[in-house]
Amino acid sequence: MGWMAEETGLDKCQANYVPLTPLSHLQRAASVFAEHIAVVYGSHRATYRQYHARVSQLASALTGLGVEPGDVVATLLPNITAQIEASFGVPACGAVLNTINTRLDVDTLTYIFEHGEAKVVLVDSQFLTPVEAAIAAMSTPAPQIIEVADQEAGFTASGRHLEYETLLTRGDALAPWIMPADEWESLALNYTSGTTGRPKGVVYHHRGAYLMTMGTPISWRMTLQPVFMAIVPLFHCNGWNHTWMMPLLGGTVVGCRDISAKAIYDGIADEGVSHFGGAPIVLNMIVNAADGERRSFDHQVEVFTAGAPPAPATLAAIGQLGFNVTQVYGLTETYGHVVESLWNPAWDALPAEEQSARKARQGIAMPMMDLTTVVDDKGQQIAMDGVTQGEIVMRGNSVMKGYYKNPEATVKAFAGGFFHSEDIAVQHPDGMMQIADRMKDIIISGGENISSIEVEGAIMAHPAVSLCAVVAKPDDKWGEVPCAFVELLEGKSATEAEVIAFVRSRLAGFKTPKRIIFQELPKTSTGKIQKFELRGIAKTA
Amino acid sequence: MGWMAEETGLDKCQANYVPLTPLSHLQRAASVFAEHIAVVYGSHRATYRQYHARVSQLASALTGLGVEPGDVVATLLPNITAQIEASFGVPACGAVLNTINTRLDVDTLTYIFEHGEAKVVLVDSQFLTPVEAAIAAMSTPAPQIIEVADQEAGFTASGRHLEYETLLTRGDALAPWIMPADEWESLALNYTSGTTGRPKGVVYHHRGAYLMTMGTPISWRMTLQPVFMAIVPLFHCNGWNHTWMMPLLGGTVVGCRDISAKAIYDGIADEGVSHFGGAPIVLNMIVNAADGERRSFDHQVEVFTAGAPPAPATLAAIGQLGFNVTQVYGLTETYGHVVESLWNPAWDALPAEEQSARKARQGIAMPMMDLTTVVDDKGQQIAMDGVTQGEIVMRGNSVMKGYYKNPEATVKAFAGGFFHSEDIAVQHPDGMMQIADRMKDIIISGGENISSIEVEGAIMAHPAVSLCAVVAKPDDKWGEVPCAFVELLEGKSATEAEVIAFVRSRLAGFKTPKRIIFQELPKTSTGKIQKFELRGIAKTA
Ligand SMILES: Nc1ncnc2c1ncn2[C@@H]1O[C@H](COP(=O)(O)OP(=O)(O)OP(=O)(O)O)[C@@H](O)[C@H]1O
Ligand SMILES: Nc1ncnc2c1ncn2[C@@H]1O[C@H](COP(=O)(O)OP(=O)(O)OP(=O)(O)O)[C@@H](O)[C@H]1O
Ligand SMILES: [Mg+2]
Ligand SMILES: [Mg+2]
Repeated sequence: MGWMAEETGLDKCQANYVPLTPLSHLQRAASVFAEHIAVVYGSHRATYRQYHARVSQLASALTGLGVEPGDVVATLLPNITAQIEASFGVPACGAVLNTINTRLDVDTLTYIFEHGEAKVVLVDSQFLTPVEAAIAAMSTPAPQIIEVADQEAGFTASGRHLEYETLLTRGDALAPWIMPADEWESLALNYTSGTTGRPKGVVYHHRGAYLMTMGTPISWRMTLQPVFMAIVPLFHCNGWNHTWMMPLLGGTVVGCRDISAKAIYDGIADEGVSHFGGAPIVLNMIVNAADGERRSFDHQVEVFTAGAPPAPATLAAIGQLGFNVTQVYGLTETYGHVVESLWNPAWDALPAEEQSARKARQGIAMPMMDLTTVVDDKGQQIAMDGVTQGEIVMRGNSVMKGYYKNPEATVKAFAGGFFHSEDIAVQHPDGMMQIADRMKDIIISGGENISSIEVEGAIMAHPAVSLCAVVAKPDDKWGEVPCAFVELLEGKSATEAEVIAFVRSRLAGFKTPKRIIFQELPKTSTGKIQKFELRGIAKTA
Repeated sequence: MGWMAEETGLDKCQANYVPLTPLSHLQRAASVFAEHIAVVYGSHRATYRQYHARVSQLASALTGLGVEPGDVVATLLPNITAQIEASFGVPACGAVLNTINTRLDVDTLTYIFEHGEAKVVLVDSQFLTPVEAAIAAMSTPAPQIIEVADQEAGFTASGRHLEYETLLTRGDALAPWIMPADEWESLALNYTSGTTGRPKGVVYHHRGAYLMTMGTPISWRMTLQPVFMAIVPLFHCNGWNHTWMMPLLGGTVVGCRDISAKAIYDGIADEGVSHFGGAPIVLNMIVNAADGERRSFDHQVEVFTAGAPPAPATLAAIGQLGFNVTQVYGLTETYGHVVESLWNPAWDALPAEEQSARKARQGIAMPMMDLTTVVDDKGQQIAMDGVTQGEIVMRGNSVMKGYYKNPEATVKAFAGGFFHSEDIAVQHPDGMMQIADRMKDIIISGGENISSIEVEGAIMAHPAVSLCAVVAKPDDKWGEVPCAFVELLEGKSATEAEVIAFVRSRLAGFKTPKRIIFQELPKTSTGKIQKFELRGIAKTA
């Protein structure tokens, strides 16, 4: 305990203690980077001065609508201007930002509105119908809808609600912001992807988001004024907190309504995009882009990938195209990425295949995290031998406050003083973690654990395969056996027997899928494959 | 106030709240950058694994000597291995690090030992005599001396005290560290330079130092694994906190016993030094280096300069030599640099002289600081017109806890909820601050304020001048008039009348010095000119 013999007069005061909050970055940027372009979307281009002014208008207009500090303000928006502005404008009036997944069904929307108690919801015209339906079905007070029209993209206002730009005109560009008095105050409410069941409401505090923004630039090789394209939906962990980080660096956020290889290539070639993040499926999209979609560019683009394990074959292919990919790992519960696949310069000498295998490891804790490791079911550190499996657990300042209105789930998630990820991993001798599977996705065959990710990696190496997912299929003899679902590349073909033989030549027999089913894979809006749906199909396949 | 309707179960716990401390960086680096070189000094080269082990040995050996958490451990060391290790080893046993200026007189040393109550002091053999004398003069319990010999540099152990390497052998390389339970705990005790009077004991907390390390890399264009040379004495604001930052980046710290142009050039050419900080006098040293001292190198070296205002002429000259200089500004009270002269790409088009003038402005708040601005004597924001003067005041997380055992001075320094710098500045329309002078150094002539810095800038442009300082000389008619002290470049000459005429052609008459005195300037060990000594001479000159 580093308290000195005499600590009189050394207490916190206004001069030396300011609650940490990402809001401070935009306040600083408004003067420091005043005339630099902050936000680009379609024909909208705003400098930091303008961005700050519009955010202030939004905040004061929300207050005008009756929003009070601590109230929830929701959004159902693509990565367009209003969604970018909401990331600051909502907390700047003291409210808690609840970005909702735009692809959710009406039922789940009703559940989230009732659970989160949003007072206001900003809705893109494209998603108005399900939102109106969800609100009609509510049995608790409904949020007020603010409609966000996107004329240029062909979505005009319905006329049924107050429109976003009209709302802004009611606000005051010089209105002071409501800053947190305590860095533990709530900043955002994010519902989990729902990959494994009913989404849970994860609550973020200002301190955690601020530290995410400070710890990320180093890993991502960011220097001043990067050009960042918002590919990861901003409703997913607030786009990994990147909009909060950009004003720290004086960077530019390039919005993107519909994610496609063409949109990404155009952003790189036309706007000079230097950084973006995306699930492995986005990397796949780029690798498999049609020739007409590709553009040439002469800078290296730094990509963060996370959300699901990238296949080594994908990493190898995209490396050839001018993209430097860093894999990161995290969960909604950890504000996004908190583990990074930090490159060791000593690996430069390894053969290409070995290099991709290293990049496919999730890695080690980022600097804003504390102890992040893999433990056995007694909470003991596992052997770092690359074979022994355990659960990834974490401790640090970028871990959520807890689940909203669910203290039981929070206590369970924080058992033993660590956040439990429910991800199963091995640890290599250098401490690098490598995910074997989600607890729920692991396949247990004849008493042996099979990592669905390992089997998927083997299938992805097949030249005709575009994407695949492996799940457990109930089996009378073995308990479970692996069953693979495969999307083929356009113009390529392969038979079930061929794929099975291909995998058999690379993996042990018990790991080889017994069935290969060719079909399109069901995905969440964040680009994850919904294995629970595939398990349903596998049961009877 | 962003507290939600329902915050039950959302409190801080072990999993989501970890006190911020720079110690966490070295703990992480020990595994993440295990085999990368962390410390270089002479023939000593330690990897992060070894650095961490030696730090753990030091911490546990200090505990073995009876050092308890909250105790003070002092050092009187050049920037050598032991000083680098102490920056982590002392706080790792819960103690407070008190790095003392190696050039202090015996009297001041006694004062600091009595005031700070150090239990142990690590002393370089070179400085043993004054330390022993200072301790002999103490009337309170004396610190135990640990002698640090530097064989390679020709300083062998006296045999009178326990030697540093022997102490380390008593420690345990696997000993766990004592981490702060509260980020407000004291980390370091730093006495001010004493440029303006009796040094004051500034207390740092763990939170502030951590945030310094997170906010600095962006401004300093640091990516992973920089090679940093410790030129600024580590006893000065802990070398601006850079040893605490390096493990965050996996960088290498290159020690340096005696600062010279040759040592710096050798570090760049032989060790690949990419970053260093230094007072403007160090830049001057490089600009004026003899041909035999220069080395060629092919990377750009990033330099932070602070501590005194760099002359535009110096900035222009060093820019030609492969160094990119960023001016920063701060005080011992702010952990070092908290204001940066952030370059605006729009200035690239300005003529060279205008560019140097921009670089000579101190700038705007760094990201870890909150409101940092210039106010009049009623505490009101001054006009941002580049002319109106006021005092720089600051608020933020990198402001000290206060002055040790001096609550009155602390209250005074924090009056009105801001830290008062006692530096006088103007603010340009873009918000950039530019220091006119220290409150105590400003010259008031016939009722007009004269910035000694402005006059110095004019003199420095003279081709025969190496260094200069301008102070007030009492004058019957005007109250005060400027009096200049000048060091000439080797082999160059100039007369008093010539220099006066030169300045007269660039500045208003009342700003032109009435006397020019050619002599060597008295400097503090951090390279600052001691104007109070010059004022004594000026009085009767
Ligand atoms: N780099 C990665 N490699 C492998 N898996 C990853 C990676 N990054 C994230 N993941 C997976 O994504 C999960 C976190 O995703 P997220 O929080 O978005 O929702 P979800 O867990 O998919 O949904 P829900 O919790 O509602 O079931 C992690 O637990 C992990 O299984
Ligand atoms: N970039 C800079 N330009 C001009 N002056 C600077 C700059 N950086 C620091 N300074 C000066 O250095 C001062 C801080 O120095 P430091 O805390 O080391 O001790 P000191 O103020 O010189 O000594 P003491 O407080 O004991 O008199 C500032 O108040 C300012 O006057
Ligand atoms: Mg989850
Ligand atoms: Mg001072």
